[in-house]
Amino acid sequence: MSKKYHDIRESAYEANMQLPKLGLVLFTFGNVSAADREERVFAIKPSGVPYEKLSPKKMVIVDFDGNIIDGDLRPSSDTKTHAVLYKHWENINGIVHTHSTYATAWAQTQRDIPIFGTTHADHLTVDVPCAPPMDDEMIKGDYEYETGFQIMNCFKEKGLSYEDVEMVLVGNHAPFTWGKTADKAVYNSAVLESVAQMAYLTEQINPSAPRLKDALIKKHFERKHGPNSYYGQ
Amino acid sequence: MSKKYHDIRESAYEANMQLPKLGLVLFTFGNVSAADREERVFAIKPSGVPYEKLSPKKMVIVDFDGNIIDGDLRPSSDTKTHAVLYKHWENINGIVHTHSTYATAWAQTQRDIPIFGTTHADHLTVDVPCAPPMDDEMIKGDYEYETGFQIMNCFKEKGLSYEDVEMVLVGNHAPFTWGKTADKAVYNSAVLESVAQMAYLTEQINPSAPRLKDALIKKHFERKHGPNSYYGQ
Amino acid sequence: MSKKYHDIRESAYEANMQLPKLGLVLFTFGNVSAADREERVFAIKPSGVPYEKLSPKKMVIVDFDGNIIDGDLRPSSDTKTHAVLYKHWENINGIVHTHSTYATAWAQTQRDIPIFGTTHADHLTVDVPCAPPMDDEMIKGDYEYETGFQIMNCFKEKGLSYEDVEMVLVGNHAPFTWGKTADKAVYNSAVLESVAQMAYLTEQINPSAPRLKDALIKKHFERKHGPNSYYGQ
Amino acid sequence: MSKKYHDIRESAYEANMQLPKLGLVLFTFGNVSAADREERVFAIKPSGVPYEKLSPKKMVIVDFDGNIIDGDLRPSSDTKTHAVLYKHWENINGIVHTHSTYATAWAQTQRDIPIFGTTHADHLTVDVPCAPPMDDEMIKGDYEYETGFQIMNCFKEKGLSYEDVEMVLVGNHAPFTWGKTADKAVYNSAVLESVAQMAYLTEQINPSAPRLKDALIKKHFERKHGPNSYYGQ
Repeated sequence: MSKKYHDIRESAYEANMQLPKLGLVLFTFGNVSAADREERVFAIKPSGVPYEKLSPKKMVIVDFDGNIIDGDLRPSSDTKTHAVLYKHWENINGIVHTHSTYATAWAQTQRDIPIFGTTHADHLTVDVPCAPPMDDEMIKGDYEYETGFQIMNCFKEKGLSYEDVEMVLVGNHAPFTWGKTADKAVYNSAVLESVAQMAYLTEQINPSAPRLKDALIKKHFERKHGPNSYYGQ
Repeated sequence: MSKKYHDIRESAYEANMQLPKLGLVLFTFGNVSAADREERVFAIKPSGVPYEKLSPKKMVIVDFDGNIIDGDLRPSSDTKTHAVLYKHWENINGIVHTHSTYATAWAQTQRDIPIFGTTHADHLTVDVPCAPPMDDEMIKGDYEYETGFQIMNCFKEKGLSYEDVEMVLVGNHAPFTWGKTADKAVYNSAVLESVAQMAYLTEQINPSAPRLKDALIKKHFERKHGPNSYYGQ
Repeated sequence: MSKKYHDIRESAYEANMQLPKLGLVLFTFGNVSAADREERVFAIKPSGVPYEKLSPKKMVIVDFDGNIIDGDLRPSSDTKTHAVLYKHWENINGIVHTHSTYATAWAQTQRDIPIFGTTHADHLTVDVPCAPPMDDEMIKGDYEYETGFQIMNCFKEKGLSYEDVEMVLVGNHAPFTWGKTADKAVYNSAVLESVAQMAYLTEQINPSAPRLKDALIKKHFERKHGPNSYYGQ
Repeated sequence: MSKKYHDIRESAYEANMQLPKLGLVLFTFGNVSAADREERVFAIKPSGVPYEKLSPKKMVIVDFDGNIIDGDLRPSSDTKTHAVLYKHWENINGIVHTHSTYATAWAQTQRDIPIFGTTHADHLTVDVPCAPPMDDEMIKGDYEYETGFQIMNCFKEKGLSYEDVEMVLVGNHAPFTWGKTADKAVYNSAVLESVAQMAYLTEQINPSAPRLKDALIKKHFERKHGPNSYYGQ
């Protein structure tokens, strides 16, 4: 096993182990990867291995075209989706996929999650996008590979930047999140699950609840992300 | 106590102990059994014994006609339902019954759980079937025995295979799941509870949410169960 | 401190400590008592003391008219309700009051909890009764004392036996449960919370879900409570 | 680091550490402060520091105009809101801000939480007030400072006393609570979250559930807060 991938194996391992602690996965229904931009590879959870049996060295090294480079185990079945996103989105170094309860329920409704409050606006200034289910031809083809393109197409059509919006729902499937590090991508998955639960409750309590007004969206985003950002609770 | 049932007692014990860890039972409201096909017997949780006081040797050995073969305690009151299923479904070696919250709520509605997403499709390609409550005559008769037939009749009428669909809701009662091992049957109970919660949320968020389209159902099932299966997250 | 109340102090202490473990209380929003029928007294949680600071000797001994008999602390503010029930219902030896989430929500709706399934029928064959809020004159009077009578009046008007139905919702307030022992009363509180959550979900999933049919109600009750009872999972 | 602020640093630290234990925060989405009325300063959580890395000495000392007096770290981004409330409300010594799930969902609906039961009435005799989102001009200005005034204006317009009502929802944002101590303010945050969840469930179960009647509101408040108070469970 090559030592040159030590750091991303450690990062991917640590980030994967956060998923059960944060209540985001049942059994093995999730995976995290961490990328090395210089080597153009990423370390990802092996397929079907329970979290309690993971270790850094079990992480599989895969290149941005989805080829296995190093490791004894089969990589996660979602590996090609990760590869496509790393290949095309140059500024991300971590990706997370889960089937967390509330985010997945929203994905199953094929609806974007409306921006109802500042918890949401502290992280993104638009509704959480939901990519529509892909065409039957794409499904029959290289499905996990096409899932990556389905996500990118959704961002193009909605005019979104993957650097501003670090999360997506894949319609009828489940969420993907990403970030500058694997840790940040995990953080985004937990934020998404919380935002998804609150939006669900908001609509139940008040079916005509208005979206957050523009001035508040702008303020909350800028205090965290703007040139004079100062946010942190 | 006979040593020849050592293995199924261990399997049944380990599987029963998973139920409280997975949040699927309150008090003793659940039971798991593990079968030995050669001996045509199964080991099942004793009746009314709290999980923290279970041990492998307390598991009761029962044959496929529901007769107690070995053990000092009374078997679970659902024992005859397990016996009927083992007797008629030759390829299962584990059965679980729980009153887990969301699956039981669906059972109480007498509705099948619609297939809304890939979490569901990764495990079965049809709605989770809900067997109707049985006729009054069957209820007055050998109730737990008839529950087994009620489940089998439901599968016959819907044209389902117990090997493809390893779970059922018994109307107004609660879920049963099964599998090639007791561990797999417990896994199915946890998956069912998660799918039941997500389907509930999906309908709350979008009452007109469409069922998963056929191409996605087929893809997700085949990547896990088909001849070229490769699934595992 | 008198030694003659040792046993009920121990019982009340052990039962009170079950409430936080079962997720039935926030802070001190609950209390359990255990009665000694010969001495015609009961031991009850002291008022406002957090569970982690309880001990058997802190339990307060009170007679069936609500007079403090032994103990250094003030008894729970609900003590008079307990006293009234012990005085008039001769066959109970434990009472529990909580503000558990789902049961309290039902109490706030002033609705009985419909019997939707066998989880409910395994414990009682009727809807969980909800006593209406009391008249303003009773509220202005000896409130906690009158709460006991409000519960008893509800049972009289509905023709219920406190031995068959060991739980009640007090409208706009919260649940009370009881039983032959303090442990059984705590068990009933946990069952009620589970039944309340499932009934809530059942109506959300299917607003026209039918009540459990009579044959099933009868069967499930009899297998647990009838002369030939055999229930236990 | 000055020793004269030792006590409020300890109080603020202990109170902050209660938030994750009570399930009221995800990551760092919350903060508690504790005031020293003689020195006219308060100790508050530093910005963006995870709870597991907090210590008393990391608490930042700020005066009632929002100026940092002592400490090496940047104070919570909500510090000015705390400062405004301490400056104008003379009898509070602790403030808590969280994004707890149910209270935040209610804030997102811009609705007051109706008083449906005695759990609510034991703590306040009116609906939990929801301050409307502020005007765009205020948002563009000194936002966190204006949030404090938004809360005070809401209380003035509704004719509420901050000593009787120790909690508020800030519309589209999240709850703030306060009290005579930081511990009491944390207690109020947990009570609010529980009341918010129960009110949500009450309306789901019975959309026409009536508010608690006046006699019960009065009784429950007086037994806890009146001149002859005796409440405690």
